[in-house]
Amino acid sequence: MESLEVLREKLDSIDDQIAALYEQRMNVCGQVGEYKVKAGRKVFDRQREKEKLADVASKVSGDFNKKGIQELYQQLMSMSRKLQYRQLVEAGALGRLPFIQINDLDKQNARVVFQGTEGAYGQAAMRQFFGENVNSFHVRTFREAMESIEEGAADYAVLPIENSTAGPVIEMYDLLDEFENYIVAETILPVVHTLSGLPGAKLTDIKRVYSKTEALMQTSRFLDEHSDWQRISVVNTAIAAKKVLEENDISQAAVCSSYAAKVHGLSVLVDGINDDDDNSTRFIVVTNQKVFLKDASKISIRFELPHQSGSLYGILSHFIYNDLNMTKIESRPIKGRPWEYCFFVDFEGNLEDPAVKNAIRGLREESQNLKILGNY
Amino acid sequence: MESLEVLREKLDSIDDQIAALYEQRMNVCGQVGEYKVKAGRKVFDRQREKEKLADVASKVSGDFNKKGIQELYQQLMSMSRKLQYRQLVEAGALGRLPFIQINDLDKQNARVVFQGTEGAYGQAAMRQFFGENVNSFHVRTFREAMESIEEGAADYAVLPIENSTAGPVIEMYDLLDEFENYIVAETILPVVHTLSGLPGAKLTDIKRVYSKTEALMQTSRFLDEHSDWQRISVVNTAIAAKKVLEENDISQAAVCSSYAAKVHGLSVLVDGINDDDDNSTRFIVVTNQKVFLKDASKISIRFELPHQSGSLYGILSHFIYNDLNMTKIESRPIKGRPWEYCFFVDFEGNLEDPAVKNAIRGLREESQNLKILGNY
Repeated sequence: MESLEVLREKLDSIDDQIAALYEQRMNVCGQVGEYKVKAGRKVFDRQREKEKLADVASKVSGDFNKKGIQELYQQLMSMSRKLQYRQLVEAGALGRLPFIQINDLDKQNARVVFQGTEGAYGQAAMRQFFGENVNSFHVRTFREAMESIEEGAADYAVLPIENSTAGPVIEMYDLLDEFENYIVAETILPVVHTLSGLPGAKLTDIKRVYSKTEALMQTSRFLDEHSDWQRISVVNTAIAAKKVLEENDISQAAVCSSYAAKVHGLSVLVDGINDDDDNSTRFIVVTNQKVFLKDASKISIRFELPHQSGSLYGILSHFIYNDLNMTKIESRPIKGRPWEYCFFVDFEGNLEDPAVKNAIRGLREESQNLKILGNY
Repeated sequence: MESLEVLREKLDSIDDQIAALYEQRMNVCGQVGEYKVKAGRKVFDRQREKEKLADVASKVSGDFNKKGIQELYQQLMSMSRKLQYRQLVEAGALGRLPFIQINDLDKQNARVVFQGTEGAYGQAAMRQFFGENVNSFHVRTFREAMESIEEGAADYAVLPIENSTAGPVIEMYDLLDEFENYIVAETILPVVHTLSGLPGAKLTDIKRVYSKTEALMQTSRFLDEHSDWQRISVVNTAIAAKKVLEENDISQAAVCSSYAAKVHGLSVLVDGINDDDDNSTRFIVVTNQKVFLKDASKISIRFELPHQSGSLYGILSHFIYNDLNMTKIESRPIKGRPWEYCFFVDFEGNLEDPAVKNAIRGLREESQNLKILGNY
C-alpha cells in the first residue's frame, strides 16, 4: 500500500487538473450566457440538465460514484445558471419581476389597521413604524385585519409574526398562506408586560388572569408562581385590559403593557413580568399589492412538498448552491392532508439579485404552490 | 461568437475529463480510507480540508470562481469522508457510538408514565404502544413526566410531540432540550374530539369550554360557530372532563375524547368536532438511557447556531451532501438570547449508517450544543 503522503500527492495533482477544468467550464458557460443574452434564450433548460446528469453518470462506475457525480453536477449547473442570470441582469435583459419596485411607502397618507383595541402592542408597533399621527383603525382579529387589507379598506396592516421568547405567531403564517396580501416591511417592538388589575386591587385578590396566549407564555415563570390562578386566553392584551375594567371584578387581572393599563384605567400591580428581559416582537407591515422597496433585503416564501416525492433536502439545495442565507424556517401541517407540510422560509436577498432569481426558478420547479410572501 | 452547439461540445469534452478525474479522485480516496482503517487514523482532518479549500481557490481566478470551486470541494470532501466512514464500518473499525443498540423494549415489565388523568389521549397512545395491561401511572404536567423519567420513577413516558392539524407541541421541544431524556420510539394515535357536558346539559346551556390549548385549536371551526363561548385552557383534555364533572355547572363543557367523557361520567353533546377528519397525534416514547433499537430509522437532533456566524445553509449542507432526507425542521427561540434559535431536525437514518456518522461529525464541528435526541 502506498503511503498517505504519496496518495495525497496524487490527490493534489488530480485537484490541480479539476480546478483548471472547472475554470475552463465556467468560461464556456459565460460564453453560453452571452449567446443567451443576444438570442433571448432562457437560462434554465430542464431537458439539457437532465441529459447532462445522465451523461456524467454513464461515464463513471459504481452506484456510489454515479450518485456522487450527479450531485456534483447539480451544484455545477446551478453555479452556471447563477453566472448566466448575472449576465442577463448586467445586460438589462432580465424579464419582468412579479413584484413592482417602489422607492418608499407613503407613510403620511397611509390608512393603517391594527388588531386589538386602544393600547394594543400592535398599535405601538404601528406608531413606531408610521409615526404618532398615523390615520388608523382597529379590528378584533388578525383575520379581520387581513380582510380589511384585501378589500382595500386599509392600505396597510401591522401584525405580529414572531416573538423573541414565545416563537412564531402560528396563526399569522396560516393567514399569509390564505390571503393574497404581501409583506412590505417589518418593525421590531420591545415588549414589557405588566400584571394590571382594577384600581385598589391587591395581588392577593387575583384569581383569574386574561391575556393573549403568546403573552401568557411569555410570562409563564411569573404566572407559575401563582399556580392557582386561572389563565384565560383572549385575542389581544389590550382587549384583556378592557375586559377587566368592564367586568369590574376585583379578582380579575390582565397581562398587558403599562400603556394599555393606563388607557383602560387599570393599575399596574407588578411591572416587567416577562420571563425574558429582552422580550421583543417582530411585526410585519402587510399590503394587498405586490410591491417591494428597492433596498429590501429579506424575502419570505412558502411552498409545499408533495407527500413522499420531492424532498426537503433537494429543495434547500437551491439556497445553498446560490449562497443565499436562510434566516428562518417553519414547517406547518397542511389542513386536510395529514403529515404533509408547507414550509415558510426567510432568506436574505432582493428580488433583483441573480442568485435570488436562480433559486426561485429552481424552487418553483421542485416544490408545489410556491408563493413569494414579500421582499422587505 | 461561437454557436451554442460548438460551446456545448466544448462543455461535453470538459465534462468527460472532469468525470474521469472524479472517478480517479474517489479511487485514491478509497486507498486513503484503507490506510486509515489500518493505521487507526480518523477520517475527518479539519486542517487538511482547510488547506485544500485554500489551495483550489488559489488555482482559479476571480471571486465568483474562487467561491464556486470551494463550494464544489466542500461537497467533494464530504463525499470522500462518507466513502471512508463506509470503509471503517465494513472493516468493523468504527468507534463506540454514544448510544447503545438494543434488540427490543421490555414492554411486559415496563413502568410507564403519561400526562393527564384517566381517559387522556396520552393513556390511549400508551396502551396502543405498550398494550392494555401496561403498568402505569399519571402526572399532571409534561414536566413532571420528564422528571419521573429522569429520576427513574418510570422507565418510559409517552408524550405528544406533534398533531397533524395543530402542528408541533412546542413545550415538548423545550423539555427535550432541557432534560437528559431520549426518544426511543414513536406511535401515532387517531384523535377524535367530542364536546361533552354534564348529563342532561343541552348545547344551548353551554357558555364555557375547557380543554388543552392544542385541542381547542384542532376544533376551532366548531368553536367559532359559538363565538360567545369562553374557551379556557387546562393542561389536558381528560383533566378538562374531570373538572366539568367536579364543578357541576351545567354551562360548562369539555373538548375531550368520548372515552374521557365516559370515564368521567359526562355526556357527549357533539361527536367528531375536530376540523380535520384525519386528525391524529404523534406520541414519542421517552427514556433516560441512551439506547436505540437496531431497526431504528429516524433520528431527531437539536443544535444552536451562534448569532451572525455559522449560518443555517452551511449546516444543512451536511444533510444534503450525505443524502440524508430531512423529514421535519423546527426553529425555536433560545430563552434569554433574543433572535437566536435552536433547531430541531428529524431525518431518516440509523446511528450506525456511515452517512449519519459523517453528517453528525460535520454538524458537531459547525453548530453549537448538538444533542442527539434519539434514534427510533
